[in-house]
Amino acid sequence: MSTSWKLKGEAKRQSILNAIPEKWRLQSPVPPATEPRDVTGDYIRQYLTEHEITITETDAVDIVAQTSTGRWSALEVTEAFCHRAALAHQLVNCLHEVFFEAAIQDAKRQDEYFAKHKTPIGHLHGLPVSLKDQFHVKGVETTMGYVGWINTFQGQQKDPRSGTESELVRELRNLGAVLYCKTSVPATLMVGETMNNIIGYTWNPKNRLLSSGGSSGGEGALIALRGSPAGFGTDIGGSVRIPAGFNSLYGIRPSAGRMPYQGAANSLDGQGTILSVIGPIAPTARSLTFLFKALLSQEPWLHDPLALELPWRDEVVRETRALIEKARAGSSTLAFGIMKYDGLALVHPPIARGLRIVEKTLRRLGHQVVEWTPPSHSIATELLDNIFNMDGGADVKYHLGLSGEPQAPEIVCNENGIQMTASEIAALNVAKREYQKQYMDYWHSTAEVTDTGRPVDALICPLAPHAAVIPSEFKSVGYTGFVNVLDYTSLAIPVTFADKEIDVRSAAESVNDSEPIQWDYDAEAYDGAPVAVQLVGRRLQEEKMLTLAEYLGEEIARDTKERI
Amino acid sequence: MSTSWKLKGEAKRQSILNAIPEKWRLQSPVPPATEPRDVTGDYIRQYLTEHEITITETDAVDIVAQTSTGRWSALEVTEAFCHRAALAHQLVNCLHEVFFEAAIQDAKRQDEYFAKHKTPIGHLHGLPVSLKDQFHVKGVETTMGYVGWINTFQGQQKDPRSGTESELVRELRNLGAVLYCKTSVPATLMVGETMNNIIGYTWNPKNRLLSSGGSSGGEGALIALRGSPAGFGTDIGGSVRIPAGFNSLYGIRPSAGRMPYQGAANSLDGQGTILSVIGPIAPTARSLTFLFKALLSQEPWLHDPLALELPWRDEVVRETRALIEKARAGSSTLAFGIMKYDGLALVHPPIARGLRIVEKTLRRLGHQVVEWTPPSHSIATELLDNIFNMDGGADVKYHLGLSGEPQAPEIVCNENGIQMTASEIAALNVAKREYQKQYMDYWHSTAEVTDTGRPVDALICPLAPHAAVIPSEFKSVGYTGFVNVLDYTSLAIPVTFADKEIDVRSAAESVNDSEPIQWDYDAEAYDGAPVAVQLVGRRLQEEKMLTLAEYLGEEIARDTKERI
Repeated sequence: MSTSWKLKGEAKRQSILNAIPEKWRLQSPVPPATEPRDVTGDYIRQYLTEHEITITETDAVDIVAQTSTGRWSALEVTEAFCHRAALAHQLVNCLHEVFFEAAIQDAKRQDEYFAKHKTPIGHLHGLPVSLKDQFHVKGVETTMGYVGWINTFQGQQKDPRSGTESELVRELRNLGAVLYCKTSVPATLMVGETMNNIIGYTWNPKNRLLSSGGSSGGEGALIALRGSPAGFGTDIGGSVRIPAGFNSLYGIRPSAGRMPYQGAANSLDGQGTILSVIGPIAPTARSLTFLFKALLSQEPWLHDPLALELPWRDEVVRETRALIEKARAGSSTLAFGIMKYDGLALVHPPIARGLRIVEKTLRRLGHQVVEWTPPSHSIATELLDNIFNMDGGADVKYHLGLSGEPQAPEIVCNENGIQMTASEIAALNVAKREYQKQYMDYWHSTAEVTDTGRPVDALICPLAPHAAVIPSEFKSVGYTGFVNVLDYTSLAIPVTFADKEIDVRSAAESVNDSEPIQWDYDAEAYDGAPVAVQLVGRRLQEEKMLTLAEYLGEEIARDTKERI
Repeated sequence: MSTSWKLKGEAKRQSILNAIPEKWRLQSPVPPATEPRDVTGDYIRQYLTEHEITITETDAVDIVAQTSTGRWSALEVTEAFCHRAALAHQLVNCLHEVFFEAAIQDAKRQDEYFAKHKTPIGHLHGLPVSLKDQFHVKGVETTMGYVGWINTFQGQQKDPRSGTESELVRELRNLGAVLYCKTSVPATLMVGETMNNIIGYTWNPKNRLLSSGGSSGGEGALIALRGSPAGFGTDIGGSVRIPAGFNSLYGIRPSAGRMPYQGAANSLDGQGTILSVIGPIAPTARSLTFLFKALLSQEPWLHDPLALELPWRDEVVRETRALIEKARAGSSTLAFGIMKYDGLALVHPPIARGLRIVEKTLRRLGHQVVEWTPPSHSIATELLDNIFNMDGGADVKYHLGLSGEPQAPEIVCNENGIQMTASEIAALNVAKREYQKQYMDYWHSTAEVTDTGRPVDALICPLAPHAAVIPSEFKSVGYTGFVNVLDYTSLAIPVTFADKEIDVRSAAESVNDSEPIQWDYDAEAYDGAPVAVQLVGRRLQEEKMLTLAEYLGEEIARDTKERI
């Protein structure tokens, strides 16, 4: 049995590599993780033409500006990203499915359409978009990292390639996006890293000693290497935000009901207390807005019974921008909560520094920053743990059991837990609602301490206790998971990089500061790891949070660049 | 033990009667149900002054037009409704809590406010509003029909009168509504009739041989007698729409998340597959719109974690009215599905006739009527049954067990069922979502058969197989329950009354028609019973459905009046 799953996983791993055209294969073995650690930037550029570099280092908004005016063909854009994605996979193991040929055919049809009609197919004309390996694409398998799903449909003995496409995929195609690859995930999805018995481990391209995060870790790694301009992950405890932040990218976890999950594969499907949600990941915040808005134009609520009839709210964007403009003119129009420690997991020096950078930026911009003293986050963490283990690990066990592969110790579901009963789940749902109510009332109460007369506009907090993590050292998803318990809107915003010269163990500046520091920290290993923060807004505040992320992301980048 | 719960129930029953001021008590016993059957209209008017009649027969919109301009005082309006509610309760047993004195004090304060500020307190200034006995009001008990809850807080040994008010109550007070009574429910809430071991049986005021429906049966009976201009019920399988329809009233079951349930007592609390929702009941459709819109102005999403940030959408009202205006000008702008039989429960002759009346009205107005051939409703009915019995009846059993009172056979929860496990519930949630998806796709597909180019605007179907039902003969809540499975928006619209001269067993017109008829029907007993239909719209379509209900309700009334 054990030989069997190993062989099956190995065969699938090889078939992914085989799907990469000969011309795009690396001719020499990838050097060890330390030579160099960082394979982004110049390292990967060595294999690309100038034009390919130009295309792949352009963001989604500007790519579509080119493709939808005929300046770039969908074909050249698609080929450039296919090439760079192929390289990315060979460097860090970030792909599960490679279907470049289908993508190239789709791109050609789009170019023909444009040539004929002189108008783009949709808002995403000719834009390559990568997908976490939960979304079904016609003609392509979905394994979700399970060896037992290879050559099946979600583990069932059905043709894996003949099914209906996921609703997200259907909408992306309507919009003119080009689909070309699916990215790696940890089997079960319930991990903050990405590893499975097919592709092995997905390494962090900025520091190959470290994790790319999870569970949308393949997306994070691929986009960090610019093998994709933007992709879609899913998030039930941090799985969009963690890989986004670990790879110096933006990623949004919207509230449940905004993006269409219909027809996607999932773990713990039908668990109704915390819903996994879909969110985009990209190198620029405006790319997230662009994709989010484009998808809502497809009215997902007419096709997904769990999607809410909430079209993109331009008026919220306008209101938020007006506040930003007034702030630029000198008024204190925005207030932010800041939480540097959740009372549970002490943060490493790079994270503490990242928070200080953001706080400084906020103050420079004239915004009020207030201390965050919310209802205990230990309640959120306990709820999260109970919810993830509601079925006693049955779902995870079943799907791993299809092949007999073992359960990785990093998985947050118990291996041999006990099924909760309906009454226990009902009590859990009530406890969750009561916590949500307490948190909501707390947020509301901050109106008493702000100068704006309103509750804080958003909360800044860590994304994890550490920067992109050392494999198997991800201790707690509490910093991201409390957002899922509350069903709030949250983004990862890149801030800086861990620096062994600055983020030292004895840093007096940290000790003198109020926030506690986690000293289980290896300055040498973390050197170069991306550091991000979270921007958290209330439920269904996607338009406002995306607008704030665009603004703050730029301002933070200005400050960090000036420092460097 | 059995003596104990009987005595406790009886004592509470007596305390409700004792709370009615001496001057408003009936001096002679209520005559038997057949002399007369109908205690609405002239019967109850005999006890009231002309001015009290004028006030209590004015709808919520017009009452507020008076109170918010100072033409009627909040006090005189409140006293008139208190008086009429006292009479209603003595006639049909529709109240659980009577707090007229507190209401009168509140009304006086409102009048003082108006005298001082020359402006109303809020959109509902001086409007008495009745509440189903699930909402907590300060100083007042909540029994929800359970003997075991008497003198407790939801069955817990806490002072029942000192707690926080339910969010709905807080918002109603902000709006200037006057709260004065809480209405009867069946213990457990899981019944389409209203009976418990406190007040006995809540009879239908139009025909006292019949049920007032349930579980918001006290609301239905009270408002039918105009002891309240409008009230709030809850609906998990039909509990707003059934009592509304059974009492010739309008009632809306909105989609989950629009009205604030926070802080209300409930059955099966924490069951997350189908959420019970709050909806208003009133004699006019515009009263529902008025209350709905007023509550949304309170931004319940800032105070209830399950409420959605969806303010009242005036643009939807305008669009819908524009379609109606175009239809009046001769265009066919609206299309309706009609389902006369769900394949499960055959309807009685009065219901079949009610549907024919509505169909005729729609055709007279120039609208297209298309046959409804949806995914099998038997799936919905089975889902509903499994969801209601998820906990094996544990919740219901626990609360009945507090006093030892027996479970009524009409309750739709099993008495000794088995708890589902987390995995079983997850599978149920998936099955429900798949059914929702099928139904959604079917609805969408009707665009192919309409002349409007859009899917049907709404569905017309029965509310139950029968008119206001003979006690213990409510066989199936499938006609209302499928809407809860789908989380659609649905209203009860009154149409006509059962007539033993027309709705006869051998009615040739029925046999010749396409719809099947249920012959287990007692024309004599049902004579005079209100007949209603359901107007069903898609999820979160409250603004559109309320606008259509106002329009269709008036047009149906015109047709039925003309016939009489």
